Amino acid sequence: MDLTRSPLALPFPELPEIEGVTVRVARAQYKDWDRADLTFIELAEGTSVAGVFTKSACASSEVELGREQRERGKARALVVNAGNANAFTGYRGREAVEQIAKQVSDHLGCEPGEVFVSSTGVIGVPLPQDKARRGIAAVLDSAPVGWREATDAIATTDTFPKAARTSAMIGDARVELVGVVKGSGMIAPDMATMLGYVFTDAAISPALLQEMLERANEQTFSCITVDGDTSTSDTVLAFATGKAANPTITSQDDAGADAFAAALTDLCRKLAQLVVRDGEGAQKFITIDVVGAASDESARRIGLAIGNSPLVKTAIAGGDANWGRVVMAVGKAGEPADRDRLSIAFGGVWTARDGQPVEDYDERPVAEHLSGDAIDIRVELGIGQGHATVWTCDLTHGYIAINADYRS
Amino acid sequence: MDLTRSPLALPFPELPEIEGVTVRVARAQYKDWDRADLTFIELAEGTSVAGVFTKSACASSEVELGREQRERGKARALVVNAGNANAFTGYRGREAVEQIAKQVSDHLGCEPGEVFVSSTGVIGVPLPQDKARRGIAAVLDSAPVGWREATDAIATTDTFPKAARTSAMIGDARVELVGVVKGSGMIAPDMATMLGYVFTDAAISPALLQEMLERANEQTFSCITVDGDTSTSDTVLAFATGKAANPTITSQDDAGADAFAAALTDLCRKLAQLVVRDGEGAQKFITIDVVGAASDESARRIGLAIGNSPLVKTAIAGGDANWGRVVMAVGKAGEPADRDRLSIAFGGVWTARDGQPVEDYDERPVAEHLSGDAIDIRVELGIGQGHATVWTCDLTHGYIAINADYRS
Repeated sequence: MDLTRSPLALPFPELPEIEGVTVRVARAQYKDWDRADLTFIELAEGTSVAGVFTKSACASSEVELGREQRERGKARALVVNAGNANAFTGYRGREAVEQIAKQVSDHLGCEPGEVFVSSTGVIGVPLPQDKARRGIAAVLDSAPVGWREATDAIATTDTFPKAARTSAMIGDARVELVGVVKGSGMIAPDMATMLGYVFTDAAISPALLQEMLERANEQTFSCITVDGDTSTSDTVLAFATGKAANPTITSQDDAGADAFAAALTDLCRKLAQLVVRDGEGAQKFITIDVVGAASDESARRIGLAIGNSPLVKTAIAGGDANWGRVVMAVGKAGEPADRDRLSIAFGGVWTARDGQPVEDYDERPVAEHLSGDAIDIRVELGIGQGHATVWTCDLTHGYIAINADYRS
Repeated sequence: MDLTRSPLALPFPELPEIEGVTVRVARAQYKDWDRADLTFIELAEGTSVAGVFTKSACASSEVELGREQRERGKARALVVNAGNANAFTGYRGREAVEQIAKQVSDHLGCEPGEVFVSSTGVIGVPLPQDKARRGIAAVLDSAPVGWREATDAIATTDTFPKAARTSAMIGDARVELVGVVKGSGMIAPDMATMLGYVFTDAAISPALLQEMLERANEQTFSCITVDGDTSTSDTVLAFATGKAANPTITSQDDAGADAFAAALTDLCRKLAQLVVRDGEGAQKFITIDVVGAASDESARRIGLAIGNSPLVKTAIAGGDANWGRVVMAVGKAGEPADRDRLSIAFGGVWTARDGQPVEDYDERPVAEHLSGDAIDIRVELGIGQGHATVWTCDLTHGYIAINADYRS
C-alpha cells in the first residue's frame, strides 16, 4: 500500500530536549521492513507518570498492565513496539510484555512495574519474544537520538510524523512540554484511539498529573474521531521528570498549577488535531462547535454524532453545506434537543435558524468555505449552556481504498 | 446521479390483494420528475393501526402527528409523499400535513386523525401545499392500482422496489400479510430508518397489534444498519382491516395470536433485509450472529457495533476475514465481554477461539466464503445466554460516490 503524505499534514516542529528524558531507537524487525520499530525512552529517577487508556472491553495486555502500573505513579522507562499490537494474544502476549519489563528493569535497576510498554500494529499475533529480547539488547546499547527518530519509530500507517511542544511558567521556573503521537485510523472518542506520550521536566505529583491528564483528555483526545472505531491498545501517558527547578506542585490550588494544566491541555489538543489531520483518506479538517446544549457532555456527544456521521462526512468531502444531514445527526445523538430551536452555520454563515432553513442566505461565501480544507460547522441548540468542540475529517474514496483495497 | 440496480436486489414478488385495502397513486410533482410520487391507500372502516417511529430528537411533523394518531388505534387512509421529507420545516411543515389529512378526511367522511401521512425526500423544504392539494384531488379521482405501483411511488433513492408477503392461520381463517418498504441510506437501528407499511386482513385489536409490531421491530428493523445514520422521518405502520373472517384476536393468549405474531415478525424481517440489500453502494449482504452475550439486548448492541464499524465493513468489501477488526468492534461496544472467551467465525470456520487466533485454520473455505455476496460472521462471547442477529452491508466506493460525489 502506498501511503502518500496527508494533504493536511503539518511540518515537524522544532522541539526542545526535556531534561531527564533520553530517547533511543532500534530495529527489532517486528515486521519485514527497513526501519527502526522499537523505541526506548529512559526517564530520570523520581519521574511521575499518569495515563489514560482505551475503554475497549478487549484491551491488550499492555493496556491491562499499564492501568495497574500507573496507579503506583512512578516510571523509569517507556518501550514502544511498532508493527505488532500484541492484542488478542492471550497469555503469550502477556508474557512478552512481562519479559520486556524484566529485561529493562534488570538493566536500569528498577522495578518491572516502572517500565511501561505499548505495542501497535497487527492484532492477533503474539509479540515474538526473541525479536523483542534482541531489540531491547540493541536499543540499550545504542546512542541517544532526537524526538524525530522516536516519532518515526512509533509510527505504523501514519503518513507524517506527529509531535508538538509548549511551555508554562510555574513560579519562576519555565517548564517544557513535548508530545509525540501516532495514529491515523481506528480513531474514536472515549479516549484517543492511538498512542500518545507527553514528556515534561515539571515537578508534579503523580496524583495531580493524573487529574490534569484526565481533564485534558476529555477536551482533546476524547473529542476527535476519524471513523468511530476504537482500538484495543489506545494509550496516552504523561511523564514528568521533575528536573525543572519548580517547587513540586501537588494540588490544583498551587501557584502555577493552572498554567501547567492549561499548557498540558493545549499540547494534548495539538496532538489530537494532528491525528485527525492524518485521518485515513482525509482531505478536509472539520471543526464542529456545539453550543447551547444541556451540558458540556451532551454537547460533546452531539458533536461526535455529527463527526461520526458518514452522511455528514461524505457531504463535506463533496463540498456540500448539507445542513439537513447535520440535523439528522443531531437528532440521532440521543441527547436533549429541540428541533425548533436548532441553528446551523457553515463557515460562520447561518444556513438554518430556529428549526427552519434560512431562505436566501448568501451561498457564495459558504461554497467558498466548503471548497477549502478547513471546515467549520457551528450548531446552536438553544436549550442550555453546554458547549464542546469536536474535530474530525471527511470520508472519502481514500478511506475505502486504504481499508478495503489493501489486499488487491 | 445514475442509480444502478443493487447487485443484491431480489425480484419483485407476487402479492395478493388485501381485502379492505385500495391503492391509488398520482403525480404531485414534488420534484421535477416523470413518475408518480403520491400514494393514497384507503382502508376499510374499522381498520386497526399500530406504529413505530424514529427516535430522532428532530423528527418531522409527520412523525409527531403519527405518534399521536396511532394512540387512538384507528386508520382510514395512508398518504405517502415522495421527493420531499417535509422535515425541519417548522409550522409550515405541520400545516401541510394537517391540510392533507383534512382534505382526505373530508372526502372519506372520517376524522383527520384517521389519515396517516408520511413524507420522504429532501429535508428543509416545506411540502408545497398547492402541489399536495392538487395531488390529493387527482389521486382521489384515479383508478385503483397494484402493490407494484405503490412501491414505485414511495421510492426515492431506492434502486429496486421492495415488498414481501406471508400468511398465517388464525383458527380456521387464513390471513394474508403484505409489506412494502423504501429506504437505502440513512439506515440505522433504534428503528428502521425508512418507511415501511404492513397491510393485513386479520381482525386484531390495535393494542395487540401495537404490542406485536414493537416486538417484531426489535428483532428486525432495529437489527439492520447501513451507515449508522438515522433519518428524521422513519416510520413503520401496520394496518389490519379485519376483513378475514377470523375471530378478533385481542390477547397474546388467543388462539392464532402466536402464529400471527410469527408471521408479522417474518414479514418485517424480509422487509428489513430488503432495505439492507439496497444499502447505498452495497456489494455484499452481511449476517452477524452474536451468541453467548449477557442479554439479547447486549447481543444486539454488540452486533450493531460490528455492523456499524467502517473498518469491519471495508474489510468485508475487500474480501478479508479480518477478525481483528471484529475484536475491535466487540471491544468498543460498551457491553460486557471477556477478551479471553471471545470466538469469531467467518462462513462457519473459526478464525479466533477463546481470545486467541486459531493457528492453521483452513483459509480456503474462508476465502471462498468471503468472495461471495452473502457473508456470515458469528461471534461467541461465552459469558451468557443472550443472542441476536444483525444484518448490514459492506462499505464500498459506491457509498462514497453516492453520498459525496452527487454534486459533481
